[in-house]
Amino acid sequence: MSTYRAPLSDIRFALYDVLDVEALFERLGYSEATRDVLDAVLDEAARFAETVLAPLNSVGDEVGCKLDSATHDVTTPPGFKAAYDQFIDGGWTGLTASPDFGGQGLPHVMGVPLNEMVNAANLAWGNFPLLSHGAVEALKHHGEAWQQEVFLKPLVEGRWTGTMCLTEPHCGTDLGLLKTRAEPNADGSYAITGTKIFITAGEHDLTDNIVHLVLAKLPDAPAGAKGISLFVTPKFKLDRNGNVGERNALHCGSIEHKMGIKGSVTCVMNFDGAQGYLVGQPHKGLQAMFTMMNTARLGVGLQGIALSERAYQNALRYARERLQTRSLSGPKVPDKPADPILVHPDVRRMLLTVKALTEGSRLLALHAGTLIDVAGHADDAGERERADTLVSFLTPISKACQTEWSIENTYNALQCFGGHGYIHEHGMEQLARDARITTLYEGTTGIQALDLMGRKTAGTQAAGLKLFLAEIEAFLQAHQDNAALAEFVAPLREKTAEWAQLTREILQRASQDPEEIGAASYDYLFYSGYVALAYWWARSVVSAEASSHSESFKQSKRETAQFYFARLLPRTLAHAAAIRSGAASLMSMADERFGT
Amino acid sequence: MSTYRAPLSDIRFALYDVLDVEALFERLGYSEATRDVLDAVLDEAARFAETVLAPLNSVGDEVGCKLDSATHDVTTPPGFKAAYDQFIDGGWTGLTASPDFGGQGLPHVMGVPLNEMVNAANLAWGNFPLLSHGAVEALKHHGEAWQQEVFLKPLVEGRWTGTMCLTEPHCGTDLGLLKTRAEPNADGSYAITGTKIFITAGEHDLTDNIVHLVLAKLPDAPAGAKGISLFVTPKFKLDRNGNVGERNALHCGSIEHKMGIKGSVTCVMNFDGAQGYLVGQPHKGLQAMFTMMNTARLGVGLQGIALSERAYQNALRYARERLQTRSLSGPKVPDKPADPILVHPDVRRMLLTVKALTEGSRLLALHAGTLIDVAGHADDAGERERADTLVSFLTPISKACQTEWSIENTYNALQCFGGHGYIHEHGMEQLARDARITTLYEGTTGIQALDLMGRKTAGTQAAGLKLFLAEIEAFLQAHQDNAALAEFVAPLREKTAEWAQLTREILQRASQDPEEIGAASYDYLFYSGYVALAYWWARSVVSAEASSHSESFKQSKRETAQFYFARLLPRTLAHAAAIRSGAASLMSMADERFGT
Repeated sequence: MSTYRAPLSDIRFALYDVLDVEALFERLGYSEATRDVLDAVLDEAARFAETVLAPLNSVGDEVGCKLDSATHDVTTPPGFKAAYDQFIDGGWTGLTASPDFGGQGLPHVMGVPLNEMVNAANLAWGNFPLLSHGAVEALKHHGEAWQQEVFLKPLVEGRWTGTMCLTEPHCGTDLGLLKTRAEPNADGSYAITGTKIFITAGEHDLTDNIVHLVLAKLPDAPAGAKGISLFVTPKFKLDRNGNVGERNALHCGSIEHKMGIKGSVTCVMNFDGAQGYLVGQPHKGLQAMFTMMNTARLGVGLQGIALSERAYQNALRYARERLQTRSLSGPKVPDKPADPILVHPDVRRMLLTVKALTEGSRLLALHAGTLIDVAGHADDAGERERADTLVSFLTPISKACQTEWSIENTYNALQCFGGHGYIHEHGMEQLARDARITTLYEGTTGIQALDLMGRKTAGTQAAGLKLFLAEIEAFLQAHQDNAALAEFVAPLREKTAEWAQLTREILQRASQDPEEIGAASYDYLFYSGYVALAYWWARSVVSAEASSHSESFKQSKRETAQFYFARLLPRTLAHAAAIRSGAASLMSMADERFGT
Repeated sequence: MSTYRAPLSDIRFALYDVLDVEALFERLGYSEATRDVLDAVLDEAARFAETVLAPLNSVGDEVGCKLDSATHDVTTPPGFKAAYDQFIDGGWTGLTASPDFGGQGLPHVMGVPLNEMVNAANLAWGNFPLLSHGAVEALKHHGEAWQQEVFLKPLVEGRWTGTMCLTEPHCGTDLGLLKTRAEPNADGSYAITGTKIFITAGEHDLTDNIVHLVLAKLPDAPAGAKGISLFVTPKFKLDRNGNVGERNALHCGSIEHKMGIKGSVTCVMNFDGAQGYLVGQPHKGLQAMFTMMNTARLGVGLQGIALSERAYQNALRYARERLQTRSLSGPKVPDKPADPILVHPDVRRMLLTVKALTEGSRLLALHAGTLIDVAGHADDAGERERADTLVSFLTPISKACQTEWSIENTYNALQCFGGHGYIHEHGMEQLARDARITTLYEGTTGIQALDLMGRKTAGTQAAGLKLFLAEIEAFLQAHQDNAALAEFVAPLREKTAEWAQLTREILQRASQDPEEIGAASYDYLFYSGYVALAYWWARSVVSAEASSHSESFKQSKRETAQFYFARLLPRTLAHAAAIRSGAASLMSMADERFGT
């Protein structure tokens, strides 16, 4: 079975030493978010994740969720409900929510380590509270006053959970095709009819009610994506005063048998004239849904980091314990029958790859978290807008890279176990199966790449990129005479210049042929991710040196950064070459020739 | 559920047009291996794979193998035994074996497409006959006359199956640590005692007897790998005249719960003084085992191609059927509600990656197969030796690259399905889970890399590489004035020169520090694999042009080659940079700093 210890030391380093959140929170007016409070939150979240959630990870995988096809009830794995009760008793669901709705009002970024720890301990369990946050965001920004009054408090307190009902059997990415209908009722509510699939936590036994945010079309809806509206549709009906009524006309028709996250339930939801209320303007549902989506995408990105961290810890433990053959340069532990496999360069390569991608990603994710706080709370409107532009730009990079890297990381960690990694009891194969969902849900990697290259770059004259490059440039200038940092500053400067240049080249080509956007998107996304991580690794070295951490910690950061620059950053060479090869190698093949 | 059609057209192209096996077989004296016979074999193998094995693929995954803990019997999934009976009735187990032992005497390379098709149709099922071939090789080369008499015919005919009992709980790669003992009996046999794990097909209900090839230590064995002997230890005892006696003192203690290949059984085998016979010389067992191992490694490499091919077919079908959003350059199928996702550049990128790696790998594998025929049957001793050196060099590249690419290929194929890929019923997640074993068993990728870089390169002054580079150079010279091929010839020339140069650099550095071998090994292996595939793609273009295949086929080969050179071959840039960064970035971190 795999184990988990929350990486508090690295989380603290990232928050306090690299991102200096103490100064940021003070500036943003979070007067209660003092170091003492933050540390207590981190310690307590770690304790909860390690002792309550982590022990339930394998039982969730082995038992899974069960649907009673007669009652349409879903039973979650043993222990999940008790853990959930403890979670809401601890106030964790409302950690960063506004006190107006029962939240604790901590900065948004403090939810990031909480979610990392929860997901590392038990990804499947973490999916139950995950989407409530998106439902809260959608209702907060687009709901009517009475809707906020009725729904937000129970969602924030975790007494109810939320869902996002978007996908239908024939449409996922292309929501313009959806068929679910909303017919007006006499009382101002709507009757929702249709089938939604892939609904995470669509039905379960953790809470009394479930709040479905459902995309559907009004009778007079224009065709396509411009005719989609959003409805709030609870499992048990509610009137405008919050009185809970009878069971709504919706139920879970079946649950999916998945490769992993078996403790999480993925439902087919049938709406048979279920009572729902319009959220926001008619036909503007997609916009409201994007509010939820961006939050969810960053959340899924965190899942990638979480699984990577857990995979690393277990692979490292195994590499230290497993004795097998001698070091190429002579026995390292001569009194044992063989050396621990950690002595072998290729085992180190695998472990350092996981370590470098995971710790670097943690900064990517926490930085995005701070930007959300700035975008919401900075005094200056310009600063808020810049933060919003930047986090919009970084969201697809963060989601796609962190999840794709989690596939690679769980792969490498499993590989360190040799054949034992393939056996269920070690828990490594569960991590690999669980990780596999993260590049699919909340928009596949291809969709993130198109979002980055199209909407966030071509669509904004690269506004987000320019802001990020300016930030990196400030860092480079501050350290251009720092000899101890030259090994990082020089290649980072070169890569950032090339990043800007590649962007110009793609946009130039795309002005002739729109397929160039799609053709470059995947490699551009990874190029971006690797340069972003190079920046965070260079900053980590600086911040570690300046910190009060141990010499061993500082040296570990520098050596991991050196590994990153020597062995992972060169992947940009392949991505740049692929980008520069253009669309022809993808588009010239006629459809029928794919099969010959 | 995923489907499978044998890719006969591409297999025939590879065999006849690229490798010209007709001329080769004639030269090697295989007078019966005429085109008619070969075509009939391919057609019939395809029919068997498609109609008998493929339908059992999902039931194998869903039902798995069951151990009766009272009787220690293993029951295979429904249909597996009936399929196996048909397989041996068809004479498939002895297709390439010598007629002296009941085989059909076809060239070795003809087993390669057979095994590809069998494994694509049903990888788990394919593991039952897989290791018999290795047992046959070990007994043929190292067994006494009576052992060959008694064991070979039933193994070749498939009436019995074979196993390789190497691994123990505390040792896999490092067999020098093994603890299984062999004590001499009065009758010249040995009593084998110990526990072996990860024994594929160690127990099952397909055949009357099972022939275990077991590594164990004699009482006077020197320590380490030089003290290992090989024993043949049947499930039911046999005397020297082949009379089957009572049950031997060995049994399956438990079976593993694995991530995939659930229809294949992986046993813990307990030997409690089981009667075995020494195969070959005392203490020389490892050498005999390597005879089995090399065969098995190429066989596992084929499994990678097999899964990749099946994954491709299903992803392509889905990409043609699934309608979702419009092409970036305007609607391609305006009368449908959306375009098929095959129009999208990034979906094409994923599909072409699978296609290019799979068809290229097929040539890598078939070429290795022809080399084994040459090594065994060429008149000239020098030619035999050169072929043996070359196939030894190519084996770790073939095994590791083809299996690692199968992870990538099943990943990309699943990704084409979006969220649907994660659901069991589509069958794509089974392919991904099944593929995951291939980089682990018969030597992990790291072990293959070390075999290539150490034993096969540093240990031979790069003898194998030099032979392969000479072959490529001959091709380049033959086509240096071919303008239609210049787009492939120029980069291939550049990469082969760099391959030789990188090899020199590594060996130079390794003369100072042996860790440089391990530090370079993984990236060197992939560098080698990508250049080898570039060669096969360039040759494919030439061979396609010269063939009688359709214009569409020729164009598809050229376009896939263009894609390969534009978008996959540049991965060598990253591998070369990693190689040149040397061992320091892997070795400088002290063990304790991995955890800080």
